[in-house]
Amino acid sequence: MKYPNKILLEEDEIPTQWYNIAADLSVPMPPPLHPGTREPATGEDFAPLFPKALIEQEMTTERFVDIPGEVLDVYKLWRPTPLFRARRLEKLLDTPAKIFYKYEGVSPAGSHKPNTAVPQVYYNAMEGVKKLTTETGAGQWGSSLAFACAQFGLECEVWQVAASYRAKPYRKTMMEIWGGKVHPSPSKVTEYGRGLLQQDEDHPGSLGIAISEAVSEAVSDDNTRYALGSVLNHVLMHQTIIGEEALLQMAKIGETPDILVGCTGGGSNFGGLAFPFMREKFKGKMYPTVRCVEPSACPTLTKGEYRYDFGDTAGMTPLMKMHTLGHNFIPEPIHAGGLRYHGMAPLVSHIYELGLVEAISIAQKECFAAGVMFAKTEGIVPAPEPTHAIAAAIREALNCKETGEEKTILTALCGHGHLDMSSYEKYLLGEMQDLDLDQNAIQEALEGVPVI
Amino acid sequence: MKYPNKILLEEDEIPTQWYNIAADLSVPMPPPLHPGTREPATGEDFAPLFPKALIEQEMTTERFVDIPGEVLDVYKLWRPTPLFRARRLEKLLDTPAKIFYKYEGVSPAGSHKPNTAVPQVYYNAMEGVKKLTTETGAGQWGSSLAFACAQFGLECEVWQVAASYRAKPYRKTMMEIWGGKVHPSPSKVTEYGRGLLQQDEDHPGSLGIAISEAVSEAVSDDNTRYALGSVLNHVLMHQTIIGEEALLQMAKIGETPDILVGCTGGGSNFGGLAFPFMREKFKGKMYPTVRCVEPSACPTLTKGEYRYDFGDTAGMTPLMKMHTLGHNFIPEPIHAGGLRYHGMAPLVSHIYELGLVEAISIAQKECFAAGVMFAKTEGIVPAPEPTHAIAAAIREALNCKETGEEKTILTALCGHGHLDMSSYEKYLLGEMQDLDLDQNAIQEALEGVPVI
Repeated sequence: MKYPNKILLEEDEIPTQWYNIAADLSVPMPPPLHPGTREPATGEDFAPLFPKALIEQEMTTERFVDIPGEVLDVYKLWRPTPLFRARRLEKLLDTPAKIFYKYEGVSPAGSHKPNTAVPQVYYNAMEGVKKLTTETGAGQWGSSLAFACAQFGLECEVWQVAASYRAKPYRKTMMEIWGGKVHPSPSKVTEYGRGLLQQDEDHPGSLGIAISEAVSEAVSDDNTRYALGSVLNHVLMHQTIIGEEALLQMAKIGETPDILVGCTGGGSNFGGLAFPFMREKFKGKMYPTVRCVEPSACPTLTKGEYRYDFGDTAGMTPLMKMHTLGHNFIPEPIHAGGLRYHGMAPLVSHIYELGLVEAISIAQKECFAAGVMFAKTEGIVPAPEPTHAIAAAIREALNCKETGEEKTILTALCGHGHLDMSSYEKYLLGEMQDLDLDQNAIQEALEGVPVI
Repeated sequence: MKYPNKILLEEDEIPTQWYNIAADLSVPMPPPLHPGTREPATGEDFAPLFPKALIEQEMTTERFVDIPGEVLDVYKLWRPTPLFRARRLEKLLDTPAKIFYKYEGVSPAGSHKPNTAVPQVYYNAMEGVKKLTTETGAGQWGSSLAFACAQFGLECEVWQVAASYRAKPYRKTMMEIWGGKVHPSPSKVTEYGRGLLQQDEDHPGSLGIAISEAVSEAVSDDNTRYALGSVLNHVLMHQTIIGEEALLQMAKIGETPDILVGCTGGGSNFGGLAFPFMREKFKGKMYPTVRCVEPSACPTLTKGEYRYDFGDTAGMTPLMKMHTLGHNFIPEPIHAGGLRYHGMAPLVSHIYELGLVEAISIAQKECFAAGVMFAKTEGIVPAPEPTHAIAAAIREALNCKETGEEKTILTALCGHGHLDMSSYEKYLLGEMQDLDLDQNAIQEALEGVPVI
């Protein structure tokens, strides 16, 4: 069948429901626990942080959840996103495999993150919330939330990991263009931040610390709530719009994937692409291998422990059962900032434990080499995060070259790298190193995790 | 008629011919002159710079020129580009006007420039050229040429205006990812550059100087040619793919523009959008007002003189009849780097003299304010260059609000601003100034222009 490089959908073909994979799992997920009592957390426990509608979505057992019309209206600024056949990359690799990528970099913020930022802001606005706080690492999530807040007239306050705040001033400006207010984290704004700055005034920060700051600010004000860009069930559910569209697009050209690869940081990009295809696999409609790809310097699935841990460094969030390197673990400063989180989404961790998905880790130099090869053939300069998935796709395509198999490989190119050029510069200058994971550091951080 | 926000075309709807407006003008264009003899330049005069196919296109009187299949194949990495109805911007402005924008920022380099970079590299490759040299200001053109060279296996050497090289390191890295070699201009690589650095080792450079360097390198090697990103007839013709697509898209939804606004630096973005619509106007099929928008700090059409001048500062290029501020004019360091050229495309200058288009100038603070308003409503952060067109579109839409007219406004959003965040930062901090044009500087620069 002859089909174009870009498989498009019209606006009226945008799926109108998100998919909740939890409804299709034979074993229920372990519940989150209250950080004080360590009893299963109730909806009320989350109320200072999130609006009711999102707490309901977090706990829902419904298989599908309707996407509100106002959310679809904003989605239509950039959705549906294109699905590409990477013919030029295939040709360079001289592989019999077919490589497809779903490209989320066409969103205003340049990644998949607005898929959840928009509904999160919408539900907060509906419940009268005036301001949202959040953390951001590489800046993709913070800018997505700032963009979404501009659409519904909410204030947005972002704690950006200090090392990233200093290294990526462009991301800060992007947030400010959309009206966001940005602090480096640790900041002088919160007590927790002030304490850390007293110990080290040049503290580089971490995602866990920034979460603690954003959460503490949210709970201190009745009109303010907090928003998280990954990890939680409702976030992963919002991202399934990616996979739902990709299913329609693959169906249009009569292709089904033999293997799905997605990069995993908090898990939302991976879940967003993979879950709808896994539903079809549950139904026996297709049989793709589903593979998580994480950085070897922050390998939560492949080297972390599956146990209850806090989502943040200060221990303010509910405890979640997930693959974790310990909430005190400070990952090496690799360039894929979005993949530097100590934990993995409880939902992704759960399905990994159930044996429904595989996981591998790849070191960053191989990833950047894959990113450059991709840019030279397909044009788009990928963000450092999805270069992990591209590297895995290339490994698979080269395997096919050896075996002669004509596998259909599908991945998500979750963002462009326009604001990550300094990382590419380091790579091109030969100054990038593959950071060895310090097993002692993991062990030490895991000692600080409560035994439950 | 109800239609979506994004009007899309399928890949097989990409126009297969470029449009040459020169064929439809009642008065022929004044010819370029040899810089030495000052006689009309022949094809041979251009041979050290350009391949035969492009020289033919530069001089052709054919109305349409076929787009080669290999060029269409590369175009399909990102074309057709979407046409958007800016409904959220219209709502904020509370205007009865309809605002449409054709978005070229989806290309790998993030602007319209690859539309001509790809065919230019293709024709060079067909004639056995091994390396291309060029200049770049803001970096959009240099990165586009580097991307295109990667597609056809040519080397690419770029002289980037030194001030921009230092202020925009991300653009340099982008060029390097695609395999380009980048020098700050003035550079130590050429004799002309070395001379300027002797006078001032921190010389900020200019487009005219960078052109001189790139040209001198090209003519010194038999296997090397030069590529220009705007100004010339064949460049503007390649860009008509924008307007041809937009014509199809407007027809799909039954709309015709009452007014077209386009930002003009060298003229290629403007010509690319406007010329196909002007053809339809010549045929009596529609009657849009067509308006050029230039920065008030570099107002070649509205304040320059229409006369023969060099395209570069050293006086190495043929003389072209165009609106010019003088080839020695150094424009104020405004943030729309792509609009800082001393001349205007001879073809745009000619049709302006014929009274077929209007021109206005707008100062940069109004443009950045328009850019921020656009980002907050439509999502996309525009490059500084098209904020001039957006500002003009907003003026027009606000006029419609006063008069009650339901005009249809069409513009080209020729690129995103992801690599221009430092300019937005200055604007948001209130540190940006509207630079008064120094009339004496123009007068002085014009004194250096040969009298012909």
